[in-house]
Amino acid sequence: MTPQPYTYLKGDSRGDAFSFVVEPFSEDFVGNLSWKFFGNQLLRCASLHAGRRGFGFDDMIRHNHVWVLSRLVIDLERMPTTGEPYTIETWVSRVYRQFTDRHFAITSPTGFNYGFATSTWALISLDSRSSADLENLPNGGFSDLTIDIEPGIGTARRVRLKQDQPIKTYVAGYSDLDINGHVNSIRYIETALDLFPVEQFKTHRPARIEALYTAEAYAADTLLYYMTPVDDTTHLVEIRRQHDNLPVFKAAIVWKPL
Amino acid sequence: MTPQPYTYLKGDSRGDAFSFVVEPFSEDFVGNLSWKFFGNQLLRCASLHAGRRGFGFDDMIRHNHVWVLSRLVIDLERMPTTGEPYTIETWVSRVYRQFTDRHFAITSPTGFNYGFATSTWALISLDSRSSADLENLPNGGFSDLTIDIEPGIGTARRVRLKQDQPIKTYVAGYSDLDINGHVNSIRYIETALDLFPVEQFKTHRPARIEALYTAEAYAADTLLYYMTPVDDTTHLVEIRRQHDNLPVFKAAIVWKPL
Repeated sequence: MTPQPYTYLKGDSRGDAFSFVVEPFSEDFVGNLSWKFFGNQLLRCASLHAGRRGFGFDDMIRHNHVWVLSRLVIDLERMPTTGEPYTIETWVSRVYRQFTDRHFAITSPTGFNYGFATSTWALISLDSRSSADLENLPNGGFSDLTIDIEPGIGTARRVRLKQDQPIKTYVAGYSDLDINGHVNSIRYIETALDLFPVEQFKTHRPARIEALYTAEAYAADTLLYYMTPVDDTTHLVEIRRQHDNLPVFKAAIVWKPL
Repeated sequence: MTPQPYTYLKGDSRGDAFSFVVEPFSEDFVGNLSWKFFGNQLLRCASLHAGRRGFGFDDMIRHNHVWVLSRLVIDLERMPTTGEPYTIETWVSRVYRQFTDRHFAITSPTGFNYGFATSTWALISLDSRSSADLENLPNGGFSDLTIDIEPGIGTARRVRLKQDQPIKTYVAGYSDLDINGHVNSIRYIETALDLFPVEQFKTHRPARIEALYTAEAYAADTLLYYMTPVDDTTHLVEIRRQHDNLPVFKAAIVWKPL
């Protein structure tokens, strides 16, 4: 009865797939699905998958724990464009110490593979602020729900910038926040892409984004943006909170010609 | 077969209704449907309604014309919150000179009325940049598709600010653009709301927004934000392009206590 912005496709005990379509007003200016919509759909699929298996947000908050995104690597052949249907499949491949790896495959109904994403999560106690040992959770945790398949897109590289002068300053505000009151994880990616002139998007596409989430930013935090090129195709970006100079987000952005 | 993020409810020759639900990752930090999602859904419903009747974007671009949003008034009892279903109904009430008025009613399945929106549009020739006479379109235009019902939420007040110093400067970038390459209409509303401290949203809600769209901004345009209070509940906002000091967006924002 309740309408959903996706069609639930399938789900065995371990993986789920959700089907979407690129709606007008959800694209960027070149007609690709926007990173805003795409990124938050990845997070939504992760949440649905975990929730259906008893380790989602609602389950964890009952034990005063929350999932925190630590790394997100997105590697795409291309983005779906206006009107194109696409499917996001998600599963968890492993649980190790304080971390778990969740993957995403983005495909078209005709079998075209748009690409993959790989994310790493920690489970943080709201009491102690420390991360739980995921290999030794009460009731056995969710290790038996893993699938030993990885997309093979690798992980995020180390990002260390040695720069004194930010190229941009931005004060986080109301529209940057998600429901936790933090700056939304995908919003960092968007604002990092905003560092590039739009002409860049007419000749190139961000083909791979390796994001490291190292701290939270809140409304009214002044964010400092640093960027340095590695080579012709790759740029490193770091976003720091001004008040304590702590990095909140680091990324490598790899461009490919259209 | 193609999944849609809304359910098409009904549509006589003159009005359409579309049903949505507030998905996680589409809310603001207080759990209300975000203005980003809500505003663009209004525009999407407008587009679907017009498209089904032969006067949508695709029809107009064939004659080298585009619809341009001139005014948007949104007046809400409250926003739908996480998990709540809601319906957007849209129709056109009249065609006068260079303008047409389109309305929206936002309701819940149980009959609760979230509120209304009223928008005014012009049809601009891409050749001459002038607006078409909508009362004298070829083939009779779409005057016979109007419904003589208006929500009665009034129109947008005049907004004239006399201020020298902007309170914020923002350079428009990639993520602010919609598919036309302009700064997205709803993005102005978001960035206007970003002028308020987030504490404001914990005790008050933006109950009414009266937006005037007076020019376009593009990527790399430096936008200057001006704001002045009218009284305890109402603020006027103006956004100007720095390079020619032309206002691109003006708004009155009316707050109500929660």
